[in-house]
Amino acid sequence: MPAPGETGPRGYSLPLSPTGAAAMLTPPPWHFSGEIVMVDYRADPRAVRRFLPSELDPGPDPGAAAAVFADWQWCSDSGAEQADPGSCRFGEFLILLGCAYRGRPMARCAYAWVDSAVPMLRGWVQGMPKQFGEIAQSRPVAVGRAGPRVAERGRFHGALSVRGRRVAEATVTLAGRAAGPPALHTVPLVHTRTFPGWIRDHPEPRQLVCSEVTDVEFSEVWTGAATLRLSDAADADFPLLAPLEVGDGHVFSYAETLCAGRLLR
Amino acid sequence: MPAPGETGPRGYSLPLSPTGAAAMLTPPPWHFSGEIVMVDYRADPRAVRRFLPSELDPGPDPGAAAAVFADWQWCSDSGAEQADPGSCRFGEFLILLGCAYRGRPMARCAYAWVDSAVPMLRGWVQGMPKQFGEIAQSRPVAVGRAGPRVAERGRFHGALSVRGRRVAEATVTLAGRAAGPPALHTVPLVHTRTFPGWIRDHPEPRQLVCSEVTDVEFSEVWTGAATLRLSDAADADFPLLAPLEVGDGHVFSYAETLCAGRLLR
Amino acid sequence: MPAPGETGPRGYSLPLSPTGAAAMLTPPPWHFSGEIVMVDYRADPRAVRRFLPSELDPGPDPGAAAAVFADWQWCSDSGAEQADPGSCRFGEFLILLGCAYRGRPMARCAYAWVDSAVPMLRGWVQGMPKQFGEIAQSRPVAVGRAGPRVAERGRFHGALSVRGRRVAEATVTLAGRAAGPPALHTVPLVHTRTFPGWIRDHPEPRQLVCSEVTDVEFSEVWTGAATLRLSDAADADFPLLAPLEVGDGHVFSYAETLCAGRLLR
Amino acid sequence: MPAPGETGPRGYSLPLSPTGAAAMLTPPPWHFSGEIVMVDYRADPRAVRRFLPSELDPGPDPGAAAAVFADWQWCSDSGAEQADPGSCRFGEFLILLGCAYRGRPMARCAYAWVDSAVPMLRGWVQGMPKQFGEIAQSRPVAVGRAGPRVAERGRFHGALSVRGRRVAEATVTLAGRAAGPPALHTVPLVHTRTFPGWIRDHPEPRQLVCSEVTDVEFSEVWTGAATLRLSDAADADFPLLAPLEVGDGHVFSYAETLCAGRLLR
Repeated sequence: MPAPGETGPRGYSLPLSPTGAAAMLTPPPWHFSGEIVMVDYRADPRAVRRFLPSELDPGPDPGAAAAVFADWQWCSDSGAEQADPGSCRFGEFLILLGCAYRGRPMARCAYAWVDSAVPMLRGWVQGMPKQFGEIAQSRPVAVGRAGPRVAERGRFHGALSVRGRRVAEATVTLAGRAAGPPALHTVPLVHTRTFPGWIRDHPEPRQLVCSEVTDVEFSEVWTGAATLRLSDAADADFPLLAPLEVGDGHVFSYAETLCAGRLLR
Repeated sequence: MPAPGETGPRGYSLPLSPTGAAAMLTPPPWHFSGEIVMVDYRADPRAVRRFLPSELDPGPDPGAAAAVFADWQWCSDSGAEQADPGSCRFGEFLILLGCAYRGRPMARCAYAWVDSAVPMLRGWVQGMPKQFGEIAQSRPVAVGRAGPRVAERGRFHGALSVRGRRVAEATVTLAGRAAGPPALHTVPLVHTRTFPGWIRDHPEPRQLVCSEVTDVEFSEVWTGAATLRLSDAADADFPLLAPLEVGDGHVFSYAETLCAGRLLR
Repeated sequence: MPAPGETGPRGYSLPLSPTGAAAMLTPPPWHFSGEIVMVDYRADPRAVRRFLPSELDPGPDPGAAAAVFADWQWCSDSGAEQADPGSCRFGEFLILLGCAYRGRPMARCAYAWVDSAVPMLRGWVQGMPKQFGEIAQSRPVAVGRAGPRVAERGRFHGALSVRGRRVAEATVTLAGRAAGPPALHTVPLVHTRTFPGWIRDHPEPRQLVCSEVTDVEFSEVWTGAATLRLSDAADADFPLLAPLEVGDGHVFSYAETLCAGRLLR
Repeated sequence: MPAPGETGPRGYSLPLSPTGAAAMLTPPPWHFSGEIVMVDYRADPRAVRRFLPSELDPGPDPGAAAAVFADWQWCSDSGAEQADPGSCRFGEFLILLGCAYRGRPMARCAYAWVDSAVPMLRGWVQGMPKQFGEIAQSRPVAVGRAGPRVAERGRFHGALSVRGRRVAEATVTLAGRAAGPPALHTVPLVHTRTFPGWIRDHPEPRQLVCSEVTDVEFSEVWTGAATLRLSDAADADFPLLAPLEVGDGHVFSYAETLCAGRLLR
């Protein structure tokens, strides 16, 4: 937005327009309510290290990783997006890596895919490396047999395809309630905010940032045995993070509000 | 499938192949579990009459109609489709018209849109006039503010677009629990099974059919005030069924199993 | 459409409506103009035989097969669809098998995928086993370097994905003009018109049909070395038709008008 | 990319990875070959002025504007993307406004929509306000009747839908060859490079930039009478740029290479 007294088109984001109404992104805060299917796994700690910027270290549990499918709804503070349900829903898949910053446990999002353009771009604003993919996960059902129950033996599936190739598949078979949320979903995400350079001899700064998150809410968490397959179809580095061992899976609802970014250091 | 002793490729549907494994459709029964957002409305009874085949009459409540958004999951008897969650989910929008066949109350599906090819074609097998559209509806949430609760004041939205134009929009604001399911969702659907002709001088038969449905299950039904808009963007006849008056809206979960068709007369 | 004197909703296809304006399909003739990338190959003749109905035999060149990518535009006789360019374009991928009916060389379309619902359903009207997929092929360019020229060394690519998995990939590198069109694109297609059964004890007839095609037009045909890969991701029978040997590839424009089906026998 | 001696994941863009192979965007130069359907029109000069940043003025022809549909292929310098034809094709729609910077005629891209994520994000790198939409335009044909010829009376259509609503429609009916390319397609585009702010008290700089473009190539340009409709479905400011008068339409092929951005001032 122009400074006071400044003229010209405005907006939180492009496109700039006379009143700012054309902006593709609304300014934060952004509210999210999601259904999560998550699988803990162990990646090669040396590979994980290569995905971490130098300010981060592998932390207390090197190689801890997770694959996360999420079926989101989001809205701005006004809630206006909810009136157009096709605009406020999106699917997401993340690869999270356990790490630490100055002794504080965090998670690094090495990969992210979404199936909607506004959430993709908003990811880049935060430093989250969101790309475009096809994402699907089981919806829990309360009646009938065409879906899993959130109950013992309920089986949840997740699938990610990118450019017409299957990249990730996961299954979680619920065994019971967990004592609490899975570790990598409770620590802050640490991103490298990066906008690609375009102007000659004007390198873009890279900023190590965390997000200010409020109004975190978890439903009861169900847990059980899981499977996870990551293919080599995404890019040449993606297979470095393939699972050496697959841990438990988790199914839960989760909400948060994203407020702003905070520079580390 | 070939008769016993017959040779050649087989399958419940095209494509035929040596073992039948290529068939796009699995044979019934098909199981469905859905989240429904439904709005009762009144259409012009004379227009409704023009959408009914001569074997049907308007029944006891001429002009009764409903617009139905559904977020489905489906599977075959084996349940195999659930392992590929992108294949077993689809959205649907229906226009239902109250009618009667020989004194028995039924509903006529005048229009249907889905967003997935297998359910579309399976609709035609039953005589259901499914076309392709973009369908979205609010997902109820249990945590956070980015979606409605299934509770008083929860507001649910539905939207249908066809060929890049908005065709239908609906809103339901929950006020309380209903005594039971909405009438037009409890009567049998009556279809005209119609396969377009292709061979000269071989007209295709048209069959008036009902579906054999088992394992019907309703969740608690919530109800409240509703809005409904139908545009003129679908085709020249669609506006004939525009709402003269909008009634209550309903939000519920519903399951059924489709087994076979039954000829009327 | 109702017979003269008959009342009730009408239309060439579902949805039936008072004037017939709601029908998803327009009646034939249908006009097509396409850009074709085609690869000849040899399949296992025993496998091909298993895909042929008993009325057909492998013909003079058992095992002759082709993979065909096409970028189509279509319109009805009125041409009205051209005013909505998103409705009249679609992509297609075919597997064709050489065969013969009573000594007449024909081609059997064992598999077909398209990326648009109207062409998919219209395929079923003809007996063509069209399923839904993501299809892409190189567009020839006249300026710049972001695409092949229709000229020596022009390299054309085609790709098919189904349900998020890559199913077919082909490449053709043009070496020169061909003497004429590739054989499997010049013989009639023979289909088994099949509509899945739904009513108990009412088996649906299966009809062996050819299409009446007029106004066939070929551009100059360019040809050259080709590659072709078919994966096992489509269904369990699809890999039976994998290439044993890959022949020449062909790039050309093609037009035809589909008028009606003709019963064989 | 890390500076010499720096460690950690790298890449021209997110996602950063050990070798840089995961980056969603390849670094420039990027090569483009497109088919263009363009309509000149006149917008309200006062409205145009409100879309221009203060460094720009309306130039010699205030209110000159154009709507541009483009069917693009793109590739990086390696050309590797051409092997995956689904990745290198995209559609685009632009609203261009005539303007001037210090006496030099330029064009301001007030709005842009594309149908592919990589080109969308790459637009933001340049300062081009690309959003996501459904874009379709007529493909010229050389055979058959299911498309226009690049010849007298050939009629080309373009259509844009955003979030399931029609936003723009255009038609060009070719009358003859033009003397040269349309004016607004020959001047430099001037963008405001803008990355939305995220970190409290760290406003993001906004940069007025032009692109360094090489290897521009035009085919013969055909021209004729045109129609153009812009709806009010995009956002509240979009209707400000509605056509007061519609000028000629143009159909041509165009290629360019985008190399880097250049700061104005």
